[in-house]
Amino acid sequence: MAQLQRLVITASQIDRQQIVLTAEQQHYLSRVLRLRSGDQFIAMNGQGQGWLAALESDRAQILEPIHAHSELSISVTLVLALPKGNGFDDVVRQATELGVTCIAPVISDRTLLNPSANKLERWRRIAQEAAEQCERQIVPEILDPVSWNDCLQIESSDSDICRLICLARGNSPHLLNYLNKSVCPSITLAIGTEGGWTDAEIEGAIAAGYQPISLGRRILRAVTAPIVALSLVAGVLERMKNEE
Amino acid sequence: MAQLQRLVITASQIDRQQIVLTAEQQHYLSRVLRLRSGDQFIAMNGQGQGWLAALESDRAQILEPIHAHSELSISVTLVLALPKGNGFDDVVRQATELGVTCIAPVISDRTLLNPSANKLERWRRIAQEAAEQCERQIVPEILDPVSWNDCLQIESSDSDICRLICLARGNSPHLLNYLNKSVCPSITLAIGTEGGWTDAEIEGAIAAGYQPISLGRRILRAVTAPIVALSLVAGVLERMKNEE
Repeated sequence: MAQLQRLVITASQIDRQQIVLTAEQQHYLSRVLRLRSGDQFIAMNGQGQGWLAALESDRAQILEPIHAHSELSISVTLVLALPKGNGFDDVVRQATELGVTCIAPVISDRTLLNPSANKLERWRRIAQEAAEQCERQIVPEILDPVSWNDCLQIESSDSDICRLICLARGNSPHLLNYLNKSVCPSITLAIGTEGGWTDAEIEGAIAAGYQPISLGRRILRAVTAPIVALSLVAGVLERMKNEE
Repeated sequence: MAQLQRLVITASQIDRQQIVLTAEQQHYLSRVLRLRSGDQFIAMNGQGQGWLAALESDRAQILEPIHAHSELSISVTLVLALPKGNGFDDVVRQATELGVTCIAPVISDRTLLNPSANKLERWRRIAQEAAEQCERQIVPEILDPVSWNDCLQIESSDSDICRLICLARGNSPHLLNYLNKSVCPSITLAIGTEGGWTDAEIEGAIAAGYQPISLGRRILRAVTAPIVALSLVAGVLERMKNEE
């Protein structure tokens, strides 16, 4: 069943045992994927539920629920200072592949440009497509961008989160050491822009409960650091499952 | 010293305590980086040695050797089935950031195109630039592409290497579990194209001593999988150093 095509639908599209397809979804299934009437695909609501479905012109028949397990066992939020250029597209795509739950873009002191509403719309579409491709049940949420200070205030209200800020230089403990020694009910990872965080931003984060950590001895680009951090988080969570 | 600009030179450019700069290097230092006579930069030979140097018109004075430690403690080779499009550029750049020693592009059954000589030249330039940026002492070697079968024959002559082939589906042990349980004098990681390895390719690898491993429960794209694998390898090697 793994090789079946996937499509994200909204809850309001479900009418008893049928899915009412939008014109765009009909086009995608019939013209792009070339499915015919009766062909099966997987419909996901993007929030953890999925169904095996069979195409029937402008609708699809729900055949059975699907129980898949490709999600991480805890919630992982990526707080990311917006990098320059189109780097964020790749980060959203790859972070989705690595199981991220939520991406919070922040405007830091070294962010060059505020993103347009079009960009946000684009990142949400990329997250949805990547979730379909990598066979996840959840589509990561992309929050509206806020300033770093606002982000620290929103975040600090929940004391159950392990909050980590990745620093390129200095002698912070390695993320893998931290993960091996800690039990985290959920994780927030904050990663800076090309120029790194400013001293004031790092001080603000530590005051708000963030622990500084290292991703290794080389200087990673802003688009690489989040993928490295999420690889280690997903690796530690899934290594444990793999051993059971 | 970490923020100084870096430049890769060849051994033949060193004349006693001076570096004879090429016209291209002079242009890069003076026009692109806007260094003036007397300004310092780091010259690296790309094979582990580096020097603090001061610009002097068409030459640079070597001031002192530099002892940096941003390399992994063992040799890590990435054997990568060539993906479609320009995906390989990003993989070369990010794998260099993660400390890879050697990248061996292979032509697999699902490779669409053989790369041109221009492409190889381009990948070698990307590796050099990325090594400068991320402050490595070694520029990874990019081998000429060979077929998967030829690669297996070359590789199998050395019995000291831990050889791992990453599979997207099935129940292979997680790479992190393997790394935590194994002592590897060096590692070779083989990663397939978008379509994955064919059954015959996997059988050939196992016969040649490759161990099948998993990178987690989601289906990673061909450009993401090598970065995830190298993040885990570098993480395990550097976590140990970080604890010392």
